[in-house]
Amino acid sequence: MNDSVKTDFKYVGTRPVRPDGPDKVTGRAKYGADLNLPGMLHAHYVRSPYAHAVIKSIDFSEALKLPGVIATMTGEDLPEPGDKLMQGAEIEMKLSDMAPVVMARGRAMFHGHPVAAVAATSASLAAEAAALVRVEYEVLPHVIDMHAALEDDAPLLHADLITTGLDPAPTVPSNLSVDLALEMGDVDLGFADADVVVERTYSVPMCHQGYIEPHAAIASADETGRVEIWCCTQGPFMVRNFTSQLTGIEPGKIKVTASEIGGGFGGKTTVYIEPVAAVLALKSGRPVKVVLSREEVFRATGPVSCSETRVRIGAKKDGTLTAIDIDIVMDSGCYSSSSIMPATMFGAACYRCENQRSRGREVLTNKPRVWAYRAPGAPQSIMAVECAVNELAEELGIDPVDFRLHNAVEEGDIPVFGLPFQAIGYKKALQAAKEHPHYQAPLGPGQGRGLASAFWINSGQQSSATINIALDGAINVLTGNPDIGGSRASMALLAAEVFGVPVETVHPTVADTDSVGYCDGTGGSRTTLATGGAVIQAAEKLVLELRHRAAAIWGVDLDEVEWVDGKAVARTTGDLENLMDAGAAVQLENREMSLVELAETSGATGGPLSAVASLHAHNSAPAFAINICDAAVDRETGKVDITRFTCIQDAGKAVHPAYVEGQMQGGAVQGIGWALNEEYLYDENGVLENPGFLDYRMPVASDLPMIDTVIIEEPNPLHPYGIRGVGEVPICPPMPAVATAVNRAAGTALYDLPLSPPKLLAAIDRAVE
Amino acid sequence: MNDSVKTDFKYVGTRPVRPDGPDKVTGRAKYGADLNLPGMLHAHYVRSPYAHAVIKSIDFSEALKLPGVIATMTGEDLPEPGDKLMQGAEIEMKLSDMAPVVMARGRAMFHGHPVAAVAATSASLAAEAAALVRVEYEVLPHVIDMHAALEDDAPLLHADLITTGLDPAPTVPSNLSVDLALEMGDVDLGFADADVVVERTYSVPMCHQGYIEPHAAIASADETGRVEIWCCTQGPFMVRNFTSQLTGIEPGKIKVTASEIGGGFGGKTTVYIEPVAAVLALKSGRPVKVVLSREEVFRATGPVSCSETRVRIGAKKDGTLTAIDIDIVMDSGCYSSSSIMPATMFGAACYRCENQRSRGREVLTNKPRVWAYRAPGAPQSIMAVECAVNELAEELGIDPVDFRLHNAVEEGDIPVFGLPFQAIGYKKALQAAKEHPHYQAPLGPGQGRGLASAFWINSGQQSSATINIALDGAINVLTGNPDIGGSRASMALLAAEVFGVPVETVHPTVADTDSVGYCDGTGGSRTTLATGGAVIQAAEKLVLELRHRAAAIWGVDLDEVEWVDGKAVARTTGDLENLMDAGAAVQLENREMSLVELAETSGATGGPLSAVASLHAHNSAPAFAINICDAAVDRETGKVDITRFTCIQDAGKAVHPAYVEGQMQGGAVQGIGWALNEEYLYDENGVLENPGFLDYRMPVASDLPMIDTVIIEEPNPLHPYGIRGVGEVPICPPMPAVATAVNRAAGTALYDLPLSPPKLLAAIDRAVE
Repeated sequence: MNDSVKTDFKYVGTRPVRPDGPDKVTGRAKYGADLNLPGMLHAHYVRSPYAHAVIKSIDFSEALKLPGVIATMTGEDLPEPGDKLMQGAEIEMKLSDMAPVVMARGRAMFHGHPVAAVAATSASLAAEAAALVRVEYEVLPHVIDMHAALEDDAPLLHADLITTGLDPAPTVPSNLSVDLALEMGDVDLGFADADVVVERTYSVPMCHQGYIEPHAAIASADETGRVEIWCCTQGPFMVRNFTSQLTGIEPGKIKVTASEIGGGFGGKTTVYIEPVAAVLALKSGRPVKVVLSREEVFRATGPVSCSETRVRIGAKKDGTLTAIDIDIVMDSGCYSSSSIMPATMFGAACYRCENQRSRGREVLTNKPRVWAYRAPGAPQSIMAVECAVNELAEELGIDPVDFRLHNAVEEGDIPVFGLPFQAIGYKKALQAAKEHPHYQAPLGPGQGRGLASAFWINSGQQSSATINIALDGAINVLTGNPDIGGSRASMALLAAEVFGVPVETVHPTVADTDSVGYCDGTGGSRTTLATGGAVIQAAEKLVLELRHRAAAIWGVDLDEVEWVDGKAVARTTGDLENLMDAGAAVQLENREMSLVELAETSGATGGPLSAVASLHAHNSAPAFAINICDAAVDRETGKVDITRFTCIQDAGKAVHPAYVEGQMQGGAVQGIGWALNEEYLYDENGVLENPGFLDYRMPVASDLPMIDTVIIEEPNPLHPYGIRGVGEVPICPPMPAVATAVNRAAGTALYDLPLSPPKLLAAIDRAVE
Repeated sequence: MNDSVKTDFKYVGTRPVRPDGPDKVTGRAKYGADLNLPGMLHAHYVRSPYAHAVIKSIDFSEALKLPGVIATMTGEDLPEPGDKLMQGAEIEMKLSDMAPVVMARGRAMFHGHPVAAVAATSASLAAEAAALVRVEYEVLPHVIDMHAALEDDAPLLHADLITTGLDPAPTVPSNLSVDLALEMGDVDLGFADADVVVERTYSVPMCHQGYIEPHAAIASADETGRVEIWCCTQGPFMVRNFTSQLTGIEPGKIKVTASEIGGGFGGKTTVYIEPVAAVLALKSGRPVKVVLSREEVFRATGPVSCSETRVRIGAKKDGTLTAIDIDIVMDSGCYSSSSIMPATMFGAACYRCENQRSRGREVLTNKPRVWAYRAPGAPQSIMAVECAVNELAEELGIDPVDFRLHNAVEEGDIPVFGLPFQAIGYKKALQAAKEHPHYQAPLGPGQGRGLASAFWINSGQQSSATINIALDGAINVLTGNPDIGGSRASMALLAAEVFGVPVETVHPTVADTDSVGYCDGTGGSRTTLATGGAVIQAAEKLVLELRHRAAAIWGVDLDEVEWVDGKAVARTTGDLENLMDAGAAVQLENREMSLVELAETSGATGGPLSAVASLHAHNSAPAFAINICDAAVDRETGKVDITRFTCIQDAGKAVHPAYVEGQMQGGAVQGIGWALNEEYLYDENGVLENPGFLDYRMPVASDLPMIDTVIIEEPNPLHPYGIRGVGEVPICPPMPAVATAVNRAAGTALYDLPLSPPKLLAAIDRAVE
């Protein structure tokens, strides 16, 4: 490991009370819908009743007759998006694939697609007015199933869509938006070398991120065109940036303040309602609030791609992998979303195998455009590879952990996506799995056990931090990253570590876009690594400044002053004659000054203590996770009970282990839900049939055992504190771990998720037949 | 002049539209009382009905019987202040002189003194509850007049008060809180040398700063004891700091956000209501709002010292001053306030005179403690010196401008307070006065003309600024200084100047105390100089960073990249092979990149663009001002009409000249009001008789002519942009200019301000007799 990576920590790695806790448990925390402004209007959408239709006209005249209906909006109020690429998007994304998600342009592409909006003096009046808006449609044929969408006679989503990723490019438009392939080695030769080959197709349903808090925003505008937005988002700078590009308002004229956020999981890394609120605020001259209902969230915000993945894997008798071939098809809804990229790249990243091929195809259908959900794209392809690996190991009679240990990637290996691995903790995590009591424990009657591992790349991107020290030495840390998974606790711990002061002294704040340097959103498991890196740098600048101040007070050289445990300490006695008078707090005798003393006297030693740091983090490092799942199946009802579940994860340095465990547990629960019950169900008209938590079945605490966790800490050699990022990989292994456990428990081979009672019962019946 | 002082400006010195204008004219701006929070309580004070009384008991039981009365407070809820000095106060100030101003401790010291407060669910309920609080008093004898307070048998305000400033210290307590003296040369010898000596006594009444917006604050507290305060103040960091010291809450646990402010003029450089709101919020667990009425503002917030000044000035026949002797007595109300210091120091600072003596005495009376009002203390002593100089010049038959030019201080002169002058613009201002059409114009019948000059020292103190550049190159400038006189415009202009971009690109913000580095308050004419200095430094750091980015993109050395008019420009052709790809915005051909282009590509060149700067400004420089006043007196009614008024001021570099003129005009109007009508009138019970704008007569626009202005710009040689500070000195010359003009017009010798109709009529009658 790199010597410059710190390993001796005093505060990092402890579990202090979370700074946001009291506000959240007392209800004081302010979420997206909690801000109200004087004179505020409420907006309500007009949504398409058809899955696919030309919008021929929109008539607001009846709506506007209602007193109190103040402003209206259609897609025409947003500028023509053209062919530009979206600036500031984490992945390559065309503006023309973003704009009509916010509001339809000419055509409604899915049932529930926003077609217009009205703003009125109350929410009920706005709803009443929206019902009076007359939209003339010309209904078009629609396609919901992605396989059907690939048929030659399928209705075309976009008449001019030419598949990207193919060379030569096709000449005929289709609903296949992306077709890309990665290859290394000689896959055919690899399969020829194999003693055993497993080939199977795995399906994952469309699901939703399922955050508790529906999208909510309020925008206000002044007469100079400056717009302020308060909203629940994973990235206030993203909201500024996207809203600017979608509305044409200059980004410098938009100030975004992120509220507390009731979950995002990737689903709040884009905008839906913010540009609408901004446009209506500008048109009305009044603040405009938009709050989605749960039904609107389900019908028209970022669901997650369903997928079908064919996997072929070959191995020698000793378990050595010889070839991996993945072919994944993913449904992106009505516009391209690019999560096909990571799905194609990362499915087999855990395995050292010379001969690999991976093809990814993205298909468009008349459903809402999909959007990111924790490690976007990866769970779908990892589901397939891991289940196949389990089958292969079983066929070869090799323990699945031993099989993975034998083939595990390690430092220096080059995966199919081309970036060589630095030091990684995958093998340590496998070893921990093998030694874990759970893995050793005998299964109960009727139970099955599944194990799966997973890789996620994690990201870096841009971050900034500001640190201001108050006169009593209290430390204010500002970043622009909403706290979706404990970032305030992490930022406080990192600052406490650098300063050597108790973490309670540090007050972390999520600042608005005017008040702190640019930060990419909270997502991509990047915040603790990158924004934390900026906090470390800003704190280090201040420690240097504090040493300068102490050196000046004592009349000694800077290099004679060390910073130890929150104090400046002079190593030599210095020149007592050259002492500056910096007030009574200076303890000359022992030549120690604490941060508090230096802060109190800062006025006399050069002024206030503040620093900023900004960076573009190129030091991200991947995460690996392993899940062990025990499941029991009720053969009468098809109901699955997860009886034991253990997550093992290489987190790099775990800054606040309780939060890391929470991420592991949360990702596990979401993956379990996706494996067992969660799915989008459409009727023949393309109408989502289960847009609510009664019919869209997410696991609750009573459905689950306590999720056990083991943190492996292989330091990221590129980061000064060894941090990797932990938020996304936990959702990758649960689906294959659960599917393997359930199929083993039930004696089935059902690999078409979710493993819901009716499907599982049918599979049991088939297996018995 | 110092070569390092910039003199060629592109944006500084222009008059762009003020950034706060639209919000203010549309009513969108949020002042102290404009924030409401859910569950908010309203506080109401219980105030002393006596001018001096022991508080024997306070009984809230009847008040608490009213449903909705939630919390109560007395002085006992604040910690014992002890002998500590107030940290962060601009002047030396004992905590024990601050704490009982917020709420009485044991004794009510003046009529209207806060004795208790109650918080209830509505403002009317709080008022009803306050009326039910039973306070048992033991009435003590009181003293209102400061001369009476110096009598041997006067009631003692503080039984243990020993006068400071005397050596040896007195052994007997008195109401004389301060008695200090400055001396240089041999004053007696100076008077012996004089051909003419003028000796006269001048009085100035107690008045009020008269800001339009009464004090308003709202505080909320969470369960961890963190307190947030929104209030109208000149210094959010001062509020944090003072509230902390007065309540015992750690400063790091207090976040203060300054609202827009409807005037302060020094009166909002301390706290009255904020600690009360904070304590009641902590006790109730609910937000608590405190809004004073106009009557409460007059009765119990910072009025301004009345004074009596005896001046003796001697001169040779040629006008050369030989001796100046000033003896000023000022009334500080019930606690010491220290404005006696500048009154004693600065009265004759315009004059080179070897032999000077200045004695200042501060007396305590049963009135509210006085507080700062623009150039605190100076107008009172300058009134006396300037009137006497006018009499002396008249007696010698020398034009008053010539007399002043003959005796004016200039660079290198050392005044009685000991700090030698750097380059100053006083003589230039005198010359401008002499040449001004106003000074040349003949007087109308019955009119008189008065001229006066004045000095004010200006201050520096601590400031911080943060600059964040958005992706479109928009520049956010954060400081912690509320905008009381155009600081947002100034900060934007200074940043625009450094960056070389249009000022409209710069968005200035007044940030809360968590979000920006420590800033001393807006006051002391310091903000443009010191906080502006921090803005300049932060902007210069970013320009250096922008040059680094451009140099890296072009593969050239930093010193080959210049920053010209908002663009990086390469002076040499550089190495085309080493070009980095920073996107399409890079125009390689002409090797120029604008700030916008560099901002847009910043993600690829090292990350976001942010900087902070903090400083302790030791580079302040004094201001000089001259007023010419023409007045006409109605001999039937005693009414004075100011018929023409001209202000000439050395502003140093005028950053936004329209604001400088506004400061000059505003100070002139306030000085005219103080000279003619404004005064505190007490009855025999020590009750203020005119606590409202109907009876306390401030000049309105229809009372005044257009105030003409001439800005002299003698750069401050210590400041990179030559800035001095302009806000305070304008209030210093109007009183003597008006008094001289009125007495000349009326043929009177009335030097006991205000020159209100009844007093002036009586003086006219006396003059006629």
